[in-house]
Amino acid sequence: MKADVGLVGLAVMGQNLVLNIARKGYTVAVYNRTAERTKRFIEERVKSEKIVPAYSIEDFVNSLSKPRKIILMVKAGKPVDDMIGELLPYLEKGDLIIDGGNSHYADTDRRLKELAKEGILYLGMGVSGGEYGALHGPSLMPGGTRDAYALVERILMDIAARTEDGPCCTYVGDGSAGHFVKMVHNGIEYSIMQSIAEIYDLMRKGLNLSTEQIGSIFEDWNNGELSSFLMEISSKIMRWNDEETGKPLVELILDKAEQKGTGKWSTQAALDLGVPTFSMAASVFARVVSYYKEERQRLSKLYHKHLTLSESVTIEELEKALSLAYFLSYSQGIWLIHEASKTFNYGIDLLEVLRIWKGGCIIRSKMLDFLIELLKDSQDNLTFLNDEKAQKFVEERLDSAVKVSNFARSLAIPSPAINGCLDYLFSLTTDSLPANLIQAQRDFFGAHTFERIDKPGTFHVEWQPLD
Amino acid sequence: MKADVGLVGLAVMGQNLVLNIARKGYTVAVYNRTAERTKRFIEERVKSEKIVPAYSIEDFVNSLSKPRKIILMVKAGKPVDDMIGELLPYLEKGDLIIDGGNSHYADTDRRLKELAKEGILYLGMGVSGGEYGALHGPSLMPGGTRDAYALVERILMDIAARTEDGPCCTYVGDGSAGHFVKMVHNGIEYSIMQSIAEIYDLMRKGLNLSTEQIGSIFEDWNNGELSSFLMEISSKIMRWNDEETGKPLVELILDKAEQKGTGKWSTQAALDLGVPTFSMAASVFARVVSYYKEERQRLSKLYHKHLTLSESVTIEELEKALSLAYFLSYSQGIWLIHEASKTFNYGIDLLEVLRIWKGGCIIRSKMLDFLIELLKDSQDNLTFLNDEKAQKFVEERLDSAVKVSNFARSLAIPSPAINGCLDYLFSLTTDSLPANLIQAQRDFFGAHTFERIDKPGTFHVEWQPLD
Repeated sequence: MKADVGLVGLAVMGQNLVLNIARKGYTVAVYNRTAERTKRFIEERVKSEKIVPAYSIEDFVNSLSKPRKIILMVKAGKPVDDMIGELLPYLEKGDLIIDGGNSHYADTDRRLKELAKEGILYLGMGVSGGEYGALHGPSLMPGGTRDAYALVERILMDIAARTEDGPCCTYVGDGSAGHFVKMVHNGIEYSIMQSIAEIYDLMRKGLNLSTEQIGSIFEDWNNGELSSFLMEISSKIMRWNDEETGKPLVELILDKAEQKGTGKWSTQAALDLGVPTFSMAASVFARVVSYYKEERQRLSKLYHKHLTLSESVTIEELEKALSLAYFLSYSQGIWLIHEASKTFNYGIDLLEVLRIWKGGCIIRSKMLDFLIELLKDSQDNLTFLNDEKAQKFVEERLDSAVKVSNFARSLAIPSPAINGCLDYLFSLTTDSLPANLIQAQRDFFGAHTFERIDKPGTFHVEWQPLD
Repeated sequence: MKADVGLVGLAVMGQNLVLNIARKGYTVAVYNRTAERTKRFIEERVKSEKIVPAYSIEDFVNSLSKPRKIILMVKAGKPVDDMIGELLPYLEKGDLIIDGGNSHYADTDRRLKELAKEGILYLGMGVSGGEYGALHGPSLMPGGTRDAYALVERILMDIAARTEDGPCCTYVGDGSAGHFVKMVHNGIEYSIMQSIAEIYDLMRKGLNLSTEQIGSIFEDWNNGELSSFLMEISSKIMRWNDEETGKPLVELILDKAEQKGTGKWSTQAALDLGVPTFSMAASVFARVVSYYKEERQRLSKLYHKHLTLSESVTIEELEKALSLAYFLSYSQGIWLIHEASKTFNYGIDLLEVLRIWKGGCIIRSKMLDFLIELLKDSQDNLTFLNDEKAQKFVEERLDSAVKVSNFARSLAIPSPAINGCLDYLFSLTTDSLPANLIQAQRDFFGAHTFERIDKPGTFHVEWQPLD
């Protein structure tokens, strides 16, 4: 009896995905470069006969039914290329490799082309949901050819999270579409996480609330329009006490945020594609600057910040500000995916992307239903702003967000994500920006020319005599 | 008689550089791919016999004294590679090519290595100052090997702008150091230009000042601590009337800002190197969003922005806010250059960089003297913030900048650069950021672990049962 599918890479995500697949009735062959990890996994976590360990690449490949379907859950970058190189000699035309890691989309496109030459099918698949999602149902974002997808559609549908709108899996699009969408999913995640962190910061430093009080508020919010996985875990985090000291654990955690690259890549892609993802970029930089802890400690002693306190804010205003930040974070991300789909011919259906984010993934939230509704009303509404319903939603929250931003400023509390959201919104809804001055400056020093508002054409002025 | 130096690429920057070199007494051979342009240049602008046209690559190369020194002033990207490819068959070991365009630093490193194999020397040289600077003295930022630099040091020193501290040219550093520094120069330029544009926007929309009034204020400011090339040209721009309509020209210029890539590259490099260049990134996105003019016009009709007006600001407060934005724009840029120098082993002397920016270039300003003073006091003070003089400078302007930011917010006027500067400053001078919550969230959903403030080590919590 050959296995239905194979999985390489038994770190925690890989293990949980294997257990998930087996629970759905499929036989899974597993392989890990370090045999010890495979053994431990089998001993400690596997009760089902549906999970079959292999201790050499050759045995692993031979244990799979044809066409073979192999999921890679190895670290992005060189390890993916290495593993493909090791598998290749044993594969046959028509076999399929699925990269389930957070690979950069350019790598995925390259691998897809290289493997197509060998007759090997390839899917770049975003997997969101963390450890828990991998085990109980992640959101899956596979991209590549439709033929390749057809080979594993049933398995992927079976293991994905489910909502009332179906399994959180769809054929995302051509080429690296799946990895691109997952990357931007993470970019949105950066922006939402940073927005929550800023609101938390204002609550503790601006309103002097205790961690426990903040936890209660977050729990309330999670029952309202902010209902979302990130709000839910934030409330749980606030209420988690350190075993040793009895203190709220979050207060003992060092404020140096790490990153693994997807937020950075999203921002770099947005720069290349010309999408103004202000708050996504600011959230990446917020993590960057947090990393300079020693520098911050030293400088904080020098800068005393005797700023004038502005009007305080209410809990309700904070909730509205955060709600607007969620909305605008999704807006930036969906716009970025839309531009990528046009540029790279991904053929992405944005409604499907929003639907498969409804369950399993880190940025799942109640708000996605509202966004789907806005996009259904008009497929051109890709920023979600071009609609009276959106306008009403934004205007009901905008004054609060501005108050929150001003309050943070007056306390010298950084709020880059919330400010990024406001600058995004204000820029995009302003007819006349001061870019006319920038164009004049560019023409002045570089003869870069400009357009005019009163007649067509390209113009240049001799602002100063050259000699 | 062979020419001292050759120049390829007779667009406006190339032409002016040629005239500058010839005026200093050097003989220059010139070549352009389209012969027509060479002819026109010789006919219309050349009176000196020191400028010798060539109409084939072979004639051009043969007209140069050995070792040959060839400056390329062609468009960044493929044209540079193409031209190198055309020159190569005629060059000999020890000849030197200088790329004076805005090439990406990675391309410069690649070309340097490729040409070294052929025994050809190579410099990547940043040239700032626009048309006027090219003719009368630019700021020159050459990088590569010291041997290569030695071949042209005298010429470069002679044609560069001069200040009381000497010619605005120095050996910047190894490899692509010159192009990297020029790229960041432009990144700072983006941030300062956007900051000026935001202040202009507040003056016209928030304070209802006329373009002429703004011009007078800018002129005043240019006599004070904001004295700088960009302030000077901004005041001239404000007073420039359109010949046809008699109206201020700036008001007739379309508010779609273009870009040629260096601001984007700076931001992408900052993301890779982990430097929080908030306002640089925001300024690039401000140009990006300006480009969506039709979208903005449509959305501006939907969003009416009945926001509560906050307290107005004075001209003096605007000046202080802009002054702080200049300071913090330089801070981000110098930090970025410092990190690049460490990572790529450029060996850059930051004081020299500041010195050669004092004349000729677009971001020259009086403030550079203050920055040099701060850096001289302590070479570790690379953000310029770590000093009591800096602290005093910042604190005297901070309240104003916060007021300006709040005023803009209350008018729904975007001010991404000024906000980016404030978020940069506040983040960097805050001991405790809310990144502890982000680390907790990451550990919750992805088992990414965290550090603690009360003991060393890496920790993970089982936030929820997996099954």
